[in-house]
Amino acid sequence: MTPDPNRTVAQPKRSSLLVVGSLALDTIETQTSRRDEVLGGAACYASFAASFFAPVRLVGVVGGDFPRAHEDLLRSRNIDLAGLERAPGRTFRWAGRYAADFNNRTTLDTQLNVFETFRPKLPAAYADSAFVFLANIDPVLQLEVLGQVHRPRFVACDTMNFWISGKRAELVRVLERVNMVLLNDEEARQLSGKDNLPAAASVIRGMGPSAVVIKRGDAGALFFSQDGVFAAPAFPLEAVVDPTGAGDSFAGGCMGWLARSGDSSAAGIRTALVVGSVLASFCVQDFSLDRFRSLDEPAIRARCAAFADLVRFQSVQF
Amino acid sequence: MTPDPNRTVAQPKRSSLLVVGSLALDTIETQTSRRDEVLGGAACYASFAASFFAPVRLVGVVGGDFPRAHEDLLRSRNIDLAGLERAPGRTFRWAGRYAADFNNRTTLDTQLNVFETFRPKLPAAYADSAFVFLANIDPVLQLEVLGQVHRPRFVACDTMNFWISGKRAELVRVLERVNMVLLNDEEARQLSGKDNLPAAASVIRGMGPSAVVIKRGDAGALFFSQDGVFAAPAFPLEAVVDPTGAGDSFAGGCMGWLARSGDSSAAGIRTALVVGSVLASFCVQDFSLDRFRSLDEPAIRARCAAFADLVRFQSVQF
Repeated sequence: MTPDPNRTVAQPKRSSLLVVGSLALDTIETQTSRRDEVLGGAACYASFAASFFAPVRLVGVVGGDFPRAHEDLLRSRNIDLAGLERAPGRTFRWAGRYAADFNNRTTLDTQLNVFETFRPKLPAAYADSAFVFLANIDPVLQLEVLGQVHRPRFVACDTMNFWISGKRAELVRVLERVNMVLLNDEEARQLSGKDNLPAAASVIRGMGPSAVVIKRGDAGALFFSQDGVFAAPAFPLEAVVDPTGAGDSFAGGCMGWLARSGDSSAAGIRTALVVGSVLASFCVQDFSLDRFRSLDEPAIRARCAAFADLVRFQSVQF
Repeated sequence: MTPDPNRTVAQPKRSSLLVVGSLALDTIETQTSRRDEVLGGAACYASFAASFFAPVRLVGVVGGDFPRAHEDLLRSRNIDLAGLERAPGRTFRWAGRYAADFNNRTTLDTQLNVFETFRPKLPAAYADSAFVFLANIDPVLQLEVLGQVHRPRFVACDTMNFWISGKRAELVRVLERVNMVLLNDEEARQLSGKDNLPAAASVIRGMGPSAVVIKRGDAGALFFSQDGVFAAPAFPLEAVVDPTGAGDSFAGGCMGWLARSGDSSAAGIRTALVVGSVLASFCVQDFSLDRFRSLDEPAIRARCAAFADLVRFQSVQF
């Protein structure tokens, strides 16, 4: 059968993903190298990772010193920056140093700058965003964002120890309104009061989100839902350069895939988490978003195939 | 088609697995409970886990105080104890305390007792053992065992930080003669001098074993071979009672499966490691070998199926 050139195949309209969170200038020290004031921030990593799969709308704030080249880089991925506020003052800065195994890092400096007084204001056109990722920011701001979107189909959030201890009541209100929460193992223990991770996930699911994803760095991630547990290993790499942003790229890749596929069932989330793992594995191969700059679909497809091979085994029959 | 009742199906003769290592009386403290002088030791856990799949021959030493009931328990699994020496003196004792998350433990007491002067002597009938697991003992003794078996098909060993630093030359000679080494992440880093685990595995593979398995506790295991990398998560459990012996049960389950299947290809080892993960997951559900006492094939099969579900995902197509 010959394809009919006059026949137009209806492409499903991809849903937009709204990402809200920090953009930063990061200073990173590893055991062997150092980078000063490079592009970073949770929303930046998440947006870039998601942009390979879905149209992204970014809400955040930068200062007058934020290089135009960084904005241009984000625009080159068709990330909508109508929601990016340029406020008077300096951009948020973070500095940290990694231990030799990359599993521990020390924060050397945090300067909130324009981020300190940030109040997210969504452009009117963003109100219809079907998928929303609330990266790690003050839960009060996460709630303000949710007040500005109209009936989103799927909302996920991240958080951190600082908000779990300092703004627990507000965080609990966020959790009541999200479909999925992504957090690391220590945060899951702190939030739930349980040391055992499956038990912690049960407690957190009881707080609202039907999907709980516990991130464990190079030990991978666990996803808990009514469908049971899914374990996604981290993709093993011979050389890790800089793990900054890995968790945010993981979340962004996952949410971008969900927006693209439209399948937020437990099975759909499993596949999305594999995509997230793949994006995180690219993120750590260079400083800042540098590996993402040259990343393309064939490379992503090849690593998705390698990921499937990583966990492949013949079933146990006896 | 009706099965012909007169047709006999030839069952492949299962290869025997030789296990050499410690038998111990352990005193275990967790955050909520304590057990005094219960059955333990690496060879004991490994033999018991393997016994669900293959005939096991055990070589080790106990003192005059080792309860007959423990021997009877091992015999009840058809573990051959012809190689178990009963020496004058007291059985090896170990005592430890676990942190709340079970990922860290403190050794409170070690009494080598009869283990201090142990020299493994294999019964003549053990010389034809096709599969050999050298649990964590002095590499000098591991070499003595290898001198007493005749052309084994597949040999695996474990080791620990104490031998890596104290008897490195002897350990290197063991590694030159084994097909597979199982060790934890810190031991892999110490042995290889590499912080990155895939890099560490490459170095260790260069020392001899074509298969390197890095155990990471509740973060699962990584298997490196010429076939690439395989990641096996740990089976998540809502309640862990006592992780003592999990790594040895993992190794024993894996080696028992290899002896049963006879398939020591990289693909065969992948399946064997899943079986090992399943056996380890049972091990930690009670103190000592208590969960193993009531374990049966249907329960093992059910958890193997649950394990397959744990890592199942639809392939990423775009």
